[in-house]
Amino acid sequence: MTLGRLNHVGIATPSIDKTVETYRHLLGAEAIGAPFDLPPQGVRVCFIDAPNAQIELIQPLDETSPIANFLRKNPAGGQHHLCFEVADMAAAIAGLQAKGATLLGDPRIGAHGTPVVFLHPRDMGGVLVELMEMPGEGH
Amino acid sequence: MTLGRLNHVGIATPSIDKTVETYRHLLGAEAIGAPFDLPPQGVRVCFIDAPNAQIELIQPLDETSPIANFLRKNPAGGQHHLCFEVADMAAAIAGLQAKGATLLGDPRIGAHGTPVVFLHPRDMGGVLVELMEMPGEGH
Repeated sequence: MTLGRLNHVGIATPSIDKTVETYRHLLGAEAIGAPFDLPPQGVRVCFIDAPNAQIELIQPLDETSPIANFLRKNPAGGQHHLCFEVADMAAAIAGLQAKGATLLGDPRIGAHGTPVVFLHPRDMGGVLVELMEMPGEGH
Repeated sequence: MTLGRLNHVGIATPSIDKTVETYRHLLGAEAIGAPFDLPPQGVRVCFIDAPNAQIELIQPLDETSPIANFLRKNPAGGQHHLCFEVADMAAAIAGLQAKGATLLGDPRIGAHGTPVVFLHPRDMGGVLVELMEMPGEGH
């Protein structure tokens, strides 16, 4: 595996609407997607495009969402995860497991409709890292 | 101001050497710069290149560094800030001040040798945001 593109930075927020307005008003964000729900993950998400990468705003759908727990510790919101692209998820997972990395659960379908998997922050210097297969590049 | 490129994600770490090895071993990072000190900021930094953006690893030079304080709360390290590029720092600052944003101090010269300024996390949904002028694009 070679380090792939930084697809997005995930940011937890108690209010996607308010945070979108912040990025629009203060930073001049213009390419803002429509928010949508991901019920299996317990979250509502919204992507803001920077020219080279995306910001994924993540709001809990209910109090059982992992993001709700994050917001209990960080009520204003904050940086939640980094997502790097991989060409082949199966190969990436096999390689990580061979190196003893801890994956958080099985791969699932992420917000972009392709397989994603999360690495435990303790393996990555306290940073929650998501790997995301790019459409059409997998096997 | 229009939202510019996500230049880098800043990650605090107690050990640049160990975190570089993690990114190399687990994620296949290959383009890893030489670490260097920024004494005025009290930090040592190291840039890892993803194809479209950089990871800035930040290690405190001493216990008075702001990063030392971050690590007291997050001993393993963690995501510290996001840095977006601006074409014209003076214009960006004037616009932000006109909108009532709180800047953390005056602009200074950042790790890439161009002016940078930080926005208070309370203005940005709990996220510390750095703005960085691109070389040759300012006025």
